[in-house]
Amino acid sequence: MAKNTYFNYRSGVLRENVDVLIVGSGPAAWTAAIYAARADLKPLVVAGFLKGGIRGGQLMTTTEVENYPGFVDGVSGPALMDILEKQARRFGTEILETDVQRIDTSKSPFIVETKKGNITAKAVIVATGAYAKKLVVPGSEEYWNKGISACAVCDGALPIFRDKELLVIGGGDTACEEALFLTKFGSKVHVALRRDQFRASKIMAERVMNNDKIEVHFNHQIESVEGDNFLTKAILKGNDGTKKELAVSGLFFAIGHTPNSDFLEGDLKKDDNGYIMVEGFSSKTSVQGIYAAGDVCDKVYRQAITSAGMGCMAALDAEKFLAEIEQKVKH
Amino acid sequence: MAKNTYFNYRSGVLRENVDVLIVGSGPAAWTAAIYAARADLKPLVVAGFLKGGIRGGQLMTTTEVENYPGFVDGVSGPALMDILEKQARRFGTEILETDVQRIDTSKSPFIVETKKGNITAKAVIVATGAYAKKLVVPGSEEYWNKGISACAVCDGALPIFRDKELLVIGGGDTACEEALFLTKFGSKVHVALRRDQFRASKIMAERVMNNDKIEVHFNHQIESVEGDNFLTKAILKGNDGTKKELAVSGLFFAIGHTPNSDFLEGDLKKDDNGYIMVEGFSSKTSVQGIYAAGDVCDKVYRQAITSAGMGCMAALDAEKFLAEIEQKVKH
Repeated sequence: MAKNTYFNYRSGVLRENVDVLIVGSGPAAWTAAIYAARADLKPLVVAGFLKGGIRGGQLMTTTEVENYPGFVDGVSGPALMDILEKQARRFGTEILETDVQRIDTSKSPFIVETKKGNITAKAVIVATGAYAKKLVVPGSEEYWNKGISACAVCDGALPIFRDKELLVIGGGDTACEEALFLTKFGSKVHVALRRDQFRASKIMAERVMNNDKIEVHFNHQIESVEGDNFLTKAILKGNDGTKKELAVSGLFFAIGHTPNSDFLEGDLKKDDNGYIMVEGFSSKTSVQGIYAAGDVCDKVYRQAITSAGMGCMAALDAEKFLAEIEQKVKH
Repeated sequence: MAKNTYFNYRSGVLRENVDVLIVGSGPAAWTAAIYAARADLKPLVVAGFLKGGIRGGQLMTTTEVENYPGFVDGVSGPALMDILEKQARRFGTEILETDVQRIDTSKSPFIVETKKGNITAKAVIVATGAYAKKLVVPGSEEYWNKGISACAVCDGALPIFRDKELLVIGGGDTACEEALFLTKFGSKVHVALRRDQFRASKIMAERVMNNDKIEVHFNHQIESVEGDNFLTKAILKGNDGTKKELAVSGLFFAIGHTPNSDFLEGDLKKDDNGYIMVEGFSSKTSVQGIYAAGDVCDKVYRQAITSAGMGCMAALDAEKFLAEIEQKVKH
């Protein structure tokens, strides 16, 4: 490819030949930025509102983070993201507030298309995270945002949910966290899950089971929803075929996540669920020069601290790659 | 093996059938403890002074940690370790101050021998880190601790090094950090490295090269040392055979690390350098129920934040393993 002629055919070129471009704005992205900036690589973070995502990542919709090592009494998700961003800025990270729409990983340098124009970059760290899944059942599209949400922590405090019965769908840690959170607002919180036990950690499951405001419906899934202007009813179907009507004003999906990896084109390998595949204990993807970190490539651990660790790995891997190509240019 | 008769032949049994025993006291160990404790697994941390190691891990000998995400203006190594330990204690971690001498990973439950007695544990997380290597040359044993050290940050501020010429051996990030640190105390700092360039990150190498108090001797290694009561001289040998005498009062090795893994017996797989081998992007070792995290299994990234991330992974892996064996017992 004739590198230098490429831009003759394009308009809106924002920046050329950036050393390290980081896409994302969660713990993986900021940690990658801290490390890349300290290594004097002048990283450019494109921190946009990715499809279904939120600036700052999933932690922005978390209240208290108790398990991020470094805060004895916990820290709020948004406060933690603010600290990480400031720390990244301190060492010279540049931040661009826009969405990445497409990355062509088959070109060298890589072409990163954003809403503000194109950027070419020698190395790219993808740290775009994942977003919450939702189910489609009769009525669910109609009452979306009229009582139905995929994020209790974002929406639970809305007036329409105050002192009403609410329903959380899911059996994992997120479902438990969201149910507990909603007890602050609702008069009663139902949790419906397909299995006969929680997939959540023991501590979270126990907290839910021991909470007087929560009723758990094991072996049940959502069948349909009804309402007037807003949601008023959810029908659950048991694994034995029986049905239950719940007079709920809120329904919150907490049934898993989808990685934000659609915008990546070219030869980059992903698994069947769209998670970017990395080589062993590294951030290396199937494309040299593209590194992945955080929930976009991790469906197992999915913690702020593991994402941060992976962000660091990606920056160190990218730094090594850049040193190698620089070395090649010299010799 | 007859599990119940085992202890008939042993004395000093400290504790039996602990769910999760964590060995170590660095970021990996404390993060594993935070996660295991929050999962209600009542972890026992054996935080000893392992051979060549220091309670609290290598961070105890670091002054300022600028790149641990969560502290905009940095944090001292010991302060960070204190925070992590307190956070682990907050959720119910128990801490035992003693050395682990041997872990028999071929038994089930595993047998952990400490100086205070034996402990059996269903799952063990090994987070024992690594220690700094030193070279043996003529005179180096004689002047060990009389001017020779493997940790500038621990020893650099001692009166014997004040306003004297000092020498650092090594070309990596640690060597650069130590050289820069020593400029605070010494009148001049020499750095000798075998290669013709630094292996360190660009930012660190540049800081060293731009420091007026530092002289770098590329293509040189240490040949021998001399002195009276204390070290007074180091002889360097160039790759071309020429020699240089440096009138130094301090010599600091910064030439790499050895993992603290000797005490592990049984079938646990390690690489040629003693690093515990883990499966892909996980903390799983070759022995089910034994997990590894941090520098004892990582020779690539070796950062506080990556160790913390790995500690979290180890706790989640151990939690899953315990849930599985519990499930088996029930059915």
